[in-house]
Amino acid sequence: MNAVPLTVVSDSLPASRKVFEPGRIHPQLRVPMREIALHPSAGEPPLIVYDSSGPYTDPAVRIDIERGLPRIREDWISARADVVIGEGRPVRPEDNGVAAGSAGAAPLFPVTRRPLKARGTAAVTQLAYARAGIVTPEMEFVAIRENLGRDRARAAGTRDGQSWGAAIPDFVTPEFVRAEVAVGRAIIPANINHPESEPMIIGRNFLVKINANIGNSAVASSTAEEVDKLVWAIRWGADTVMDLSTGRNIHTIREWIIRNSPVPIGTVPIYQALEKVGGVAEGLTWEVFRDTLIEQAEQGVDYFTIHAGVRLHYVPLTANRVTGIVSRGGSIMAKWCLAHHRESFLYEHFEEICEICRAYDVSFSLGDGLRPGSIADANDAAQFAELETLGELTRIAWKHDCQVMIEGPGHVPMHKIKENMDKQLATCGEAPFYTLGPLTTDIAPGYDHITSAIGAAMIGWYGTAMLCYVTPKEHLGLPDRKDVKTGVITYKIAAHAADLAKGHPGARERDDALSRARFDFRWGDQFNLSLDPDTACAFHDETMPKEAHKVAHFCSMCGPKFCSMRISHEVRAEAKQQGMQEMAVRFRASGGELYVPSGESQG
Amino acid sequence: MNAVPLTVVSDSLPASRKVFEPGRIHPQLRVPMREIALHPSAGEPPLIVYDSSGPYTDPAVRIDIERGLPRIREDWISARADVVIGEGRPVRPEDNGVAAGSAGAAPLFPVTRRPLKARGTAAVTQLAYARAGIVTPEMEFVAIRENLGRDRARAAGTRDGQSWGAAIPDFVTPEFVRAEVAVGRAIIPANINHPESEPMIIGRNFLVKINANIGNSAVASSTAEEVDKLVWAIRWGADTVMDLSTGRNIHTIREWIIRNSPVPIGTVPIYQALEKVGGVAEGLTWEVFRDTLIEQAEQGVDYFTIHAGVRLHYVPLTANRVTGIVSRGGSIMAKWCLAHHRESFLYEHFEEICEICRAYDVSFSLGDGLRPGSIADANDAAQFAELETLGELTRIAWKHDCQVMIEGPGHVPMHKIKENMDKQLATCGEAPFYTLGPLTTDIAPGYDHITSAIGAAMIGWYGTAMLCYVTPKEHLGLPDRKDVKTGVITYKIAAHAADLAKGHPGARERDDALSRARFDFRWGDQFNLSLDPDTACAFHDETMPKEAHKVAHFCSMCGPKFCSMRISHEVRAEAKQQGMQEMAVRFRASGGELYVPSGESQG
Repeated sequence: MNAVPLTVVSDSLPASRKVFEPGRIHPQLRVPMREIALHPSAGEPPLIVYDSSGPYTDPAVRIDIERGLPRIREDWISARADVVIGEGRPVRPEDNGVAAGSAGAAPLFPVTRRPLKARGTAAVTQLAYARAGIVTPEMEFVAIRENLGRDRARAAGTRDGQSWGAAIPDFVTPEFVRAEVAVGRAIIPANINHPESEPMIIGRNFLVKINANIGNSAVASSTAEEVDKLVWAIRWGADTVMDLSTGRNIHTIREWIIRNSPVPIGTVPIYQALEKVGGVAEGLTWEVFRDTLIEQAEQGVDYFTIHAGVRLHYVPLTANRVTGIVSRGGSIMAKWCLAHHRESFLYEHFEEICEICRAYDVSFSLGDGLRPGSIADANDAAQFAELETLGELTRIAWKHDCQVMIEGPGHVPMHKIKENMDKQLATCGEAPFYTLGPLTTDIAPGYDHITSAIGAAMIGWYGTAMLCYVTPKEHLGLPDRKDVKTGVITYKIAAHAADLAKGHPGARERDDALSRARFDFRWGDQFNLSLDPDTACAFHDETMPKEAHKVAHFCSMCGPKFCSMRISHEVRAEAKQQGMQEMAVRFRASGGELYVPSGESQG
Repeated sequence: MNAVPLTVVSDSLPASRKVFEPGRIHPQLRVPMREIALHPSAGEPPLIVYDSSGPYTDPAVRIDIERGLPRIREDWISARADVVIGEGRPVRPEDNGVAAGSAGAAPLFPVTRRPLKARGTAAVTQLAYARAGIVTPEMEFVAIRENLGRDRARAAGTRDGQSWGAAIPDFVTPEFVRAEVAVGRAIIPANINHPESEPMIIGRNFLVKINANIGNSAVASSTAEEVDKLVWAIRWGADTVMDLSTGRNIHTIREWIIRNSPVPIGTVPIYQALEKVGGVAEGLTWEVFRDTLIEQAEQGVDYFTIHAGVRLHYVPLTANRVTGIVSRGGSIMAKWCLAHHRESFLYEHFEEICEICRAYDVSFSLGDGLRPGSIADANDAAQFAELETLGELTRIAWKHDCQVMIEGPGHVPMHKIKENMDKQLATCGEAPFYTLGPLTTDIAPGYDHITSAIGAAMIGWYGTAMLCYVTPKEHLGLPDRKDVKTGVITYKIAAHAADLAKGHPGARERDDALSRARFDFRWGDQFNLSLDPDTACAFHDETMPKEAHKVAHFCSMCGPKFCSMRISHEVRAEAKQQGMQEMAVRFRASGGELYVPSGESQG
């Protein structure tokens, strides 16, 4: 009967333990981080890294996915005294496309609770609090989280990077977080009905985040697989997860996901709305869509992709494109607009959507329904026309105290990437940018995690706040568990490369720790400090599997005689006797003028 | 006895056939290209792509790796009447570290020939011919090859890109090739003793090339595996291959590789020289090294990595590095210099090395022995001091009519990549740059093909002429066949993304053809046009394996109802009736001012 796997992966990563830091303003906070222990010979303290994995890697928490995760934000939310317990919209058969208990129906999540909503017309958004000068527990939580365990004293190290106008502070304070949220430059997606979530922030002046898409389609996958993918994705570093399910059981799958998710969950509500009208785009109505928004807001969805920028008169701009409209939501709305020859109901009812979002603190992710789907269509009139409208909608959402981020392309060759970032910042008042890739060439299906990681790293460097992953299955099929991990690790690489290039003050510590481990032949530390210790260790062991090889001063790539690092150590030992340090100092003292040791020929 | 696999992969890629274009100046040329046939419904001509795979994908050639490939350049070389047949240096046991016929000795290549060398002091290099105003068959061959089947009439299409000072012509003429080689901005690695090679060019104003490293180490791999890796690497697009073998049988393995290679082969001669002196760096002498150069030049090695820029007084600059010296050759030379407290014999004898190279046309690949091995060490004093010397050596080599390219890093964060390119161009007189990655972060061992593809695509865009691949095994072990393919495809992506961004006039045709196939649901064409048809098709078939699915207007990623491309076609059909084209024209005529259809509310 119950198809959900009762055992998701819930052990720690190698050499890692979960540590918590308390708040100062809000002492009850327990901000999680991962501490990686190093070999005693390193003579270094453990390295602390960002931890998106939630209670699943906390041995102190008993995981029971039939009950859901601890509701850590429940008290914070109720303490604000601006919410009421609502009646809750009853679940209807059409929410799942199948009647409960009938064949094909997924098992319901066992625990039910009545949803919260704002008292009266109160804005219960982090943006409203920030504007009111309130530092919420959510804000302090993310401030501590962003510092990666560094204290203020250690923060003022050397900075290096080209930030393209981003202003990342040496040390993130709760007040800095509040100020960034208040001006709309960052968002904290945190629906009041998702108290299980650990707050995180998306903004140009913070660590670059990544999103992983999961979700079934009418053709493949089940509830159990999707919950497993969620836990798997956050284990490897996904900061948010989008549930893009489109088949049956869409409401039920989402409930299992949200109740078990410590990261914000995003959705594209038009997908479910379309299911409710039998998959016929022309059959969509504002009423069905509105009902879907409330249904999902009550469940606890943290951000909605809304394709309100696809306006009737932009559709003709796609006529001569090589790949037309490639956003699912965008194509649905374009079809609706043309069929009725009417302006988009999302655009026309945008202020009502804002009213719903502000009552639950659902953040907007303004969808780029007209994003390019090929190199040929990059940066074209359709794409940039829509961006103008997204800027207009951003200002409307802000007027309603709603949090907003903006979705971006797509397929863009390298030389056209920066223009996307620059235009987005200018048009949308520095609201966070959230891009899919972009893919820098169309010719490698099967490897689009790589074609897109190139673009993602670059646009992250230029200022994109969150990168939506692309898996090797892009364009070809629904990603499975293996693809999810590959996508997440690939995008952690892109995000981290961007942090380094922006000069994030804490980013290089992990690179340096790993490089020191590499130079010292601390193989275990090298694996444990890496993004994917399992794969690094397995690759090493393919050719040198014995435990004794873990202390060898070489690997099979070069063998013992040709290991440059081993020789480098010998060079240093040799040089020590010859006073190499002294020579180096002399070199630098001479202003970098290259000296020639006396008595040496220059050939 | 014979451990070499008699059956390397030698079938065509899907839907592909080999086509040849003749020369005009040299009508005997048969320049190979790959033609990919499209489905009749496409209404498009076949697409022609660059083909590095050599005779292995030519059904008209009977492959027999015990005989080696056809010697296509033999007549061109002899027609120049500037070479003589030499005695040839006899093979000695120390060349292989093991006596022939003894246990552990690999089978010898069955065919022996006496090597060519320059008559007297003649310079038999492509650079010498180019300077003399001679358009060699090699030059015309690469000119035709670079045009990807485009004729001059078709060449003047729309150009788009940011070339950072590169000057790629619409159409490559033999004279353009000659001129680029003459000024040292491009090289054609083509040892007179490697007549099996199909000429290719490395330069900033040509398609970006990639190199794959193969070769055994003392710990892993055999002769058979290395020949198989060669054929496998060029099948997927490697433009040159470096044999980095360091264990036993080093001479024999190289012979099998060169005789069966249609692409230029590069080596690092110091590796073999070190084997000859028992692996003791201090034991190296100029005489042993010189003998090794001649041995390899006679075999037909097309380019030598020479670490002559690692000078004694630079070694102290590495003292405070996080990862010291990470180039094998660099660390060997540093150790030698310190042990003897003498200037590098490579630097002192550089002019003699030039004399050898000019007598066989071995190109220089001036090694970056002091490249950074970690983000922490990027762009430091040691690295850039060596680069100055490489500039000095470039001018010396050019004086001797030798072809030169310059090797580059390594590990470099994104914001420091462009400085590498700019300094290299300025310091080395625009000699082609040949970089390893660079890796943009250190934290992902197991995924360094990706950390480095990001940097490779960027530095390729900025002007690097050839990208040396990095496989997933980097830092962990010797790559196997699977890793070689992953590395090659990843680097083809990086090189192609760079070509697109530079605005190469022929690059986008493949992207556009594939995108049209994608939009038309020509699944077969989409697979066949991709860099790796096998993987693309296999990924698709994981969820939708039936032949009928190959004509489905959706895949399992979104399912039928949510396929944006399917809907996009419906949108176009709908719009046709409504005169979408006309609307689009009206929109553009208005100067891009967004019109609002009359009677529509703006909500």
